[in-house]
Amino acid sequence: MQLGRHISGQFNVELESIRTHVLAMGGLVEEQISLALHALYKHDSQLASKVNRNDHKVNQMEMAIDEACTRIIAKRQPTAKDLRLIMAIIKTITDLERIGDVATKIGYVAQEQFSPKQESMIVLVESFGRMAVHMLHQVLDAFARMDVQAAAKVYHMDDELDAEYKKVLRQMMDFMMEEPSSVPKIMQIVSCAQAIERVGDRCQNICEYIIYFVKGKDVRHDPEYLQSLLDE
Amino acid sequence: MQLGRHISGQFNVELESIRTHVLAMGGLVEEQISLALHALYKHDSQLASKVNRNDHKVNQMEMAIDEACTRIIAKRQPTAKDLRLIMAIIKTITDLERIGDVATKIGYVAQEQFSPKQESMIVLVESFGRMAVHMLHQVLDAFARMDVQAAAKVYHMDDELDAEYKKVLRQMMDFMMEEPSSVPKIMQIVSCAQAIERVGDRCQNICEYIIYFVKGKDVRHDPEYLQSLLDE
Repeated sequence: MQLGRHISGQFNVELESIRTHVLAMGGLVEEQISLALHALYKHDSQLASKVNRNDHKVNQMEMAIDEACTRIIAKRQPTAKDLRLIMAIIKTITDLERIGDVATKIGYVAQEQFSPKQESMIVLVESFGRMAVHMLHQVLDAFARMDVQAAAKVYHMDDELDAEYKKVLRQMMDFMMEEPSSVPKIMQIVSCAQAIERVGDRCQNICEYIIYFVKGKDVRHDPEYLQSLLDE
Repeated sequence: MQLGRHISGQFNVELESIRTHVLAMGGLVEEQISLALHALYKHDSQLASKVNRNDHKVNQMEMAIDEACTRIIAKRQPTAKDLRLIMAIIKTITDLERIGDVATKIGYVAQEQFSPKQESMIVLVESFGRMAVHMLHQVLDAFARMDVQAAAKVYHMDDELDAEYKKVLRQMMDFMMEEPSSVPKIMQIVSCAQAIERVGDRCQNICEYIIYFVKGKDVRHDPEYLQSLLDE
C-alpha cells in the first residue's frame, strides 16, 4: 500500500514535470512568434536572426517531451485519464513545434527589404499576427488550467482570425493589382499571413486535445458539441 | 506460458489490424488527392464535390485508429518496439489526415471558373501535384514494409518537390505581374500549390516516424543521420 502510494506519488511528479515542460515550450513558442513580429515591424534583422537561431530550442523541447511521454507510458503503464493526458500532450507539442516554425518563417521575411509603400502591408500582417499571439496565449492558459470552457471559447476565436485573414489577403491582392511589380515582395508578406492563419488552426487543435483530456471525448470534426460547451 | 503466448498472439493480431487500417487510410488519402487533381485538371466539379464529401471518411479513420491505439496502450501496456510502432502510427495518421485536407482544398478550387489563359497555371499545378502523389505513394510503401532505406530515399525526394514548387510559384508570380486583373484567381491556384508543397513536408514527417520505429532513434532535425541512411 505504502509502496503503491509511493509509486503513484512518483508518477504524479513525473506527469507534473512533463506538463510544466509543455507550458515552458508553449511560452517559448509564444515569445518566438511575438519577437518575430516585432522584428518584422521594426526591420530588426538582428532580432530576426536571433529568433531563427532559437528555433532549435523549440525542436529540442519537443523531442525531449516526446521521449519523456514514451518513457512514462512504458514505465508507468498509465490508463484512463493519465493516459489521455499523455496523448493530449504528445499531440499538443506537435502543434506547438509547427507554430514555432511560423516564427522562423516570419523571421526570414523580416530580413528582407521593402519599399515604404510595401511596408503598409507589413503593418497589416503585424497586427494580424498579434491576434494570433493572443489566441495562442489564451490556449496555453486554458491548457495550464485544463479549462474546457476556456478551450471552447478560444476555439471559436478562430472565426475572427479567419475573417481578419480574408480582409488582409484582400488588401494584399488589391495592392498587387495596383502595383504589379510588387508581386514577388507582397507574396512574401502573404506567406507570413498564411502561416499566421494556420497558427489559429493549430490553436484549435490544442483546444480539442484539452477537451479530449478533460471530457474523454474526441471532439474533432464535431462542431455542435464544441458549440454546446460554450453554453455549459 | 500458453496463456502468455495467447495474449501476445492476440496483441499481435490487434497491432496488425491497426497497421492495416493505417495503410487503408493512406490509400484513401492518396486516392483523394489524386481525384482532386483530376477534378481540377478536367474542371469536373461533380468529382470535386465527391472528393469533398469523402473527407469525413478520412477524418473518421483517423479518430478510429487513434482510439484503437489508446485502447491497446491501456490494455496491453506495450513497451519497446511495440510502443514505438504505436507512437509512430499516432503521429503518422495526424499527417495523413492533414494531407486529406489538401484534397479538399484542391476540390474547392476545382469548382471555380478560370479563363483559358489562367488554365495554363492549373496545368502546372496538376503536374506538380502528381509529384506529391508519387512521393506519398512511396512513403506509404515504405511504411507498409517498414523499410528505413526507402524512407530515407523518400525523405530526400522533397528536395525535388521544393525546387519544382519554386519554379511553379515563379511562373504564377510572372503571370500575375503580366495580367494583374488575374491576381485573385491565380492566388487560388497558388494556394493549391502551397498546400501540395506541404504534402511533401508531411511525407517527410512520416519517413521520420518509420525510422524512429525501426531504429529507435528520433531523427527529426538530424539531416546528417538521414543522409547517412542513404549510404547504408
